[in-house]
Amino acid sequence: MRHMILLLVSLLLAAPLTIVAQPNSLLPVPRNMRMGEGATPLTLDSGTTVRVTRFRDARLDRAVARFVDRAEARIGVPFAVPGGPTATIVIEVTAAGQRVQGIDENESYSLHVNNERAFLKAPTVVGAIRGLETLLQLITGDEQRFYVPEVAIEDEPRFHWRGLLVDVGRHFMPVEQIKNTLDGMALVKLNVLHWHLSEDQGFRVESKRFPKLHQLGSDGSYYTQSELRDVVAYARDRGIRVVPEFDMPGHSTAWFVGYPQYASRPAPIAIRREWGGADAIFDPSREETYTFIDQFIGEMVAIFPDQYWHIGGDEVEAKHWNGNARITRWRRARGFANTAAVQAHFNRRLTTILRKHGRVMIGWDEVLHPQLPTQTVVQSWRGVNYLSEAVRKGHPGILSAPYYLDHIKPATDFYLADPLPAGTTLTAEQQALVLGGEACMWSEFVSEETTDSRLWPRLGAVAERLWSPQHVTDVPDMYRRLDVLAGRLEGMGLRVQSHTARMLRQLMPTGDIAPLETLLTVAQPPFFGQRLNGVSTNQLQPLTRIVDAARPDPSARWLVERLVRRVVQGPVDVAARDSLATLFARWRDNAPRVRALGTGTPLIAQSTPASDALARTSEIGLQAIGYLSRGERPPSEWLQMSMIELKGYEGPQGLLRVSIVSEIVKLLVILGGVVS
Amino acid sequence: MRHMILLLVSLLLAAPLTIVAQPNSLLPVPRNMRMGEGATPLTLDSGTTVRVTRFRDARLDRAVARFVDRAEARIGVPFAVPGGPTATIVIEVTAAGQRVQGIDENESYSLHVNNERAFLKAPTVVGAIRGLETLLQLITGDEQRFYVPEVAIEDEPRFHWRGLLVDVGRHFMPVEQIKNTLDGMALVKLNVLHWHLSEDQGFRVESKRFPKLHQLGSDGSYYTQSELRDVVAYARDRGIRVVPEFDMPGHSTAWFVGYPQYASRPAPIAIRREWGGADAIFDPSREETYTFIDQFIGEMVAIFPDQYWHIGGDEVEAKHWNGNARITRWRRARGFANTAAVQAHFNRRLTTILRKHGRVMIGWDEVLHPQLPTQTVVQSWRGVNYLSEAVRKGHPGILSAPYYLDHIKPATDFYLADPLPAGTTLTAEQQALVLGGEACMWSEFVSEETTDSRLWPRLGAVAERLWSPQHVTDVPDMYRRLDVLAGRLEGMGLRVQSHTARMLRQLMPTGDIAPLETLLTVAQPPFFGQRLNGVSTNQLQPLTRIVDAARPDPSARWLVERLVRRVVQGPVDVAARDSLATLFARWRDNAPRVRALGTGTPLIAQSTPASDALARTSEIGLQAIGYLSRGERPPSEWLQMSMIELKGYEGPQGLLRVSIVSEIVKLLVILGGVVS
Repeated sequence: MRHMILLLVSLLLAAPLTIVAQPNSLLPVPRNMRMGEGATPLTLDSGTTVRVTRFRDARLDRAVARFVDRAEARIGVPFAVPGGPTATIVIEVTAAGQRVQGIDENESYSLHVNNERAFLKAPTVVGAIRGLETLLQLITGDEQRFYVPEVAIEDEPRFHWRGLLVDVGRHFMPVEQIKNTLDGMALVKLNVLHWHLSEDQGFRVESKRFPKLHQLGSDGSYYTQSELRDVVAYARDRGIRVVPEFDMPGHSTAWFVGYPQYASRPAPIAIRREWGGADAIFDPSREETYTFIDQFIGEMVAIFPDQYWHIGGDEVEAKHWNGNARITRWRRARGFANTAAVQAHFNRRLTTILRKHGRVMIGWDEVLHPQLPTQTVVQSWRGVNYLSEAVRKGHPGILSAPYYLDHIKPATDFYLADPLPAGTTLTAEQQALVLGGEACMWSEFVSEETTDSRLWPRLGAVAERLWSPQHVTDVPDMYRRLDVLAGRLEGMGLRVQSHTARMLRQLMPTGDIAPLETLLTVAQPPFFGQRLNGVSTNQLQPLTRIVDAARPDPSARWLVERLVRRVVQGPVDVAARDSLATLFARWRDNAPRVRALGTGTPLIAQSTPASDALARTSEIGLQAIGYLSRGERPPSEWLQMSMIELKGYEGPQGLLRVSIVSEIVKLLVILGGVVS
Repeated sequence: MRHMILLLVSLLLAAPLTIVAQPNSLLPVPRNMRMGEGATPLTLDSGTTVRVTRFRDARLDRAVARFVDRAEARIGVPFAVPGGPTATIVIEVTAAGQRVQGIDENESYSLHVNNERAFLKAPTVVGAIRGLETLLQLITGDEQRFYVPEVAIEDEPRFHWRGLLVDVGRHFMPVEQIKNTLDGMALVKLNVLHWHLSEDQGFRVESKRFPKLHQLGSDGSYYTQSELRDVVAYARDRGIRVVPEFDMPGHSTAWFVGYPQYASRPAPIAIRREWGGADAIFDPSREETYTFIDQFIGEMVAIFPDQYWHIGGDEVEAKHWNGNARITRWRRARGFANTAAVQAHFNRRLTTILRKHGRVMIGWDEVLHPQLPTQTVVQSWRGVNYLSEAVRKGHPGILSAPYYLDHIKPATDFYLADPLPAGTTLTAEQQALVLGGEACMWSEFVSEETTDSRLWPRLGAVAERLWSPQHVTDVPDMYRRLDVLAGRLEGMGLRVQSHTARMLRQLMPTGDIAPLETLLTVAQPPFFGQRLNGVSTNQLQPLTRIVDAARPDPSARWLVERLVRRVVQGPVDVAARDSLATLFARWRDNAPRVRALGTGTPLIAQSTPASDALARTSEIGLQAIGYLSRGERPPSEWLQMSMIELKGYEGPQGLLRVSIVSEIVKLLVILGGVVS
């Protein structure tokens, strides 16, 4: 028994323990970096000048102007007028780079800083954009001055495709929100905005050719074509490609509110409010459907210059085609054995249309089919094994499965998920087909107001995984730098840290919100499936409850994980025990305060189950620390009852989850192990 | 001596002391309100329905949709599908109101709530918009449910003109920021956005007729015509008029970067970066100047439908005309005695142009001249006596002098400044010419990032002064409700409370900012003149320092003022003494923490003088409380030396001012009075 428990403990502790402190807060970590001795760093002040040598164009000029604005804001004084050959910061770019940024755009740069100047060199403007972000992150200071330490960096990304999917179909995100997200993406060197623009719950793009698409399919929330162009230009200025997704043949109910003639069932068709499962999908049997799609894509390619076009292709429910007698007759007449064969046919037609418009097709896992042309890119949302299957069949692949930000998992989970893990069985040729990865922010439970808090800082962990060398896997150092990233984004105006207080003010405009803020340092939203199955909800449900004020991977979770690790791994760490005891006491004593606030609104009253569960969890934790401190054997009944009680707190309590239950379990396991 | 000190104390206490608690948090206070007994309020839940009876139009529909969205967000569930005759919330409007909202638009409404329904009745859509804001502010809750208390309200504004000037010339504010401000204005029932669109430092409007205006005069920061139309429509949807100001003949340097031919001096003319004093003003001697202005206004009236047009007219420096020999010859030839006569001529020409375009002219104080047509509105920025002079001469007038938000004075100062004070010597006819007032947010030291924190919640005090009855002057209750307003705006996404943390994160992306937040609950930006004269600054200076993270009228100032009042007015208030002692001890002990943070960046190190001054002020306050508690006579030397030391802390310390110095002085005065 004792042996088994020790084994269990060692398994619990299997995550890497070594803390390799980085000498700075760069995120992502560059491929190669050598810090100087730092005796004489480069001072930044009102005498600093910036000079662009060799190549320049308007995009580079704008990037440099943004860099100067941000650096000046950081140091609080304007730089001097641009200097001549003696400039402090010199930027040397070879050429513009690709007219439409492609997957093989060169993003490399080198940065050399000594006490006289910073020299940034890049073959393309995009490389320079990456290097300027690094330079900004290197600015530090002391009491007297701001400076950049002596450093030599040679950097380039590990993967070419480093993306973020933003779902504006289920909940719309205004242009400003998209731009804030692009600013954050640029900060961590992501390079693809995968813009999920249509869904059962909304069609988000103005079509001049088919105006009923946005007029009837969007509830009035859509992007005008001028806004779309503006976003594409804004992204290009930051070295980010915009890949549009118009999901078909499924996830397409909103298309048919205005154009039911292309649907698998007759009118009227309304915008779907419930999550999961379409009310109608495209009718693959009519030639008019393809003409319609062709014309629509023809209109859109003028707005989205990217070479890739995402057709979705996921979760096509057979019932929509099988339930339509005419479509079924057509299917049999054409000799398609099943609906999978029909979808393959539909996809081949799309491939032809896209090729005509000069676009390469991307689709989700389900598009994979023997008849799919191999140049079609497969994006894997169901797991790394699906990615392997796709590349083994010769398709380029993008990994998304482990990077679902909306699933509310901790940053560690993303960070340690490698698109090409060390032990991969793929051949070198197959590995070359793995283009990279994409984080996904599906928006069933994410609104404009909450998206910053669900994207950041966790998206930084994905960004580093896709940019930095494979061996960069130091979790504690990642958390240290994610914390800096969160502060940087907050300073830029994103609602990363201040999200909670703002949402709590919606619930409670005045009075002390501190007890709720304390609760939400450790209580988090439930995982995606738990929320989906927990309370009946749909697109009309306001996302303004305590769960929406909560944050994924809350700050105290990682803190407790670290402290528990120190306590259970021995030697005796009194400081860690005391820190835990202080935290547990605070959380236990917080429950009556939360309860008191609940008398003012039912939406706060709904947080008392989680608050009480946290109090009980903390109480058990305190008792466990007590036994450990006294070297005492806890009564086995206490151990057993506590374990059972904690088990009850593992799931959501109301709409919140206590994030540290499994850490308290570890304390109990070690207690059981020590004493048995 | 003793008598004099007691007199001084009673003067210090002259502000109203009675706390008349409002039964709710409505801001502004309605003209007439009767609360019911409240035994059976109106419950709001997923069964609530909203119905518009009688008149409806698209503007009303949008207003109701916004109301429903906000109410649903507040209660966390969607309302039921719009109901029939049994609807819970009934909105009855008589007619659309004016096609272009005018100064005499009817903004009245009545609201009757019982346990079965809320009935909102208004003669116009604007009245309904006002009433919906009131209804939203009435929503409250307990542990079980949300509800609106039983109430009967008859409401209308005291003044017709309740405005806010936003200066986008000196620092540009993007459309989103303007919209956020309009949302806040609607919350407190303000009805005029006075948009100061051109300045020496920037011309902010796209002109298709004279494109060099925005191309060369704006640094690229200007509103496109489509954005301007969008803002005007957005404002109209909220019952807010948009009055554009294009300041002339002075404050106009930026016009001449592109069109020097209309300036008082030859090209080249650059955008002026320094504050105060133009580099060039309009040339009044050339006919081409008036043709140019005529054509420009002709282009703009299509965008700005408001009947009023602001020509600025302030601070015209004689030197620009006197220093030009040709203009001087022309002035003499025309028989104008001085430059004031020239400006009067210029203004008469403008009046004619504006009349042709169907617009009524507004100008600042200085436009007042015997030859100015009496329909011209005079906006007073130099004091209430200038307003009186204008209305005595038959001009309609708007008061702005006491409402300069950028001067960083406390809300009390705005609240107690009445455009028509009780003892006014104006005749009834003259009083009728006082249209109302306008708060001003000049932007020498205000950027997009800081403007929310400088507007709010103090603007609420001005809004209430202009809407509510004259007798509503309860300062403590105003502060209570401003606090609720701040929370409401924060919940809507404005950066009112979270401003400080966000700006501090720009200075310090990671680490504990709490010591700085503590400092900024009591240290505030210096008054306008102090900052202008303090440190050399211009348009290029980033507004990202500690002073920009600070807030006007910081929360602890009013708290200390209240506590000190309780301590000095007797009878012995031990609780107030203890509270003060706790605060003082906290601020004294905060100084070393601020000092430690300063080692990380010079911008934080710059806050140590203020932090140290606060610590010393608090130490003296603690000693004073000690003497008071012990009923002890302080040594007169201590009293004298402390007074001298406090005197030294009255002005800015670095770029921050300790807001409570005068309150500690009050404690010393009472100590001196008690013992002498």
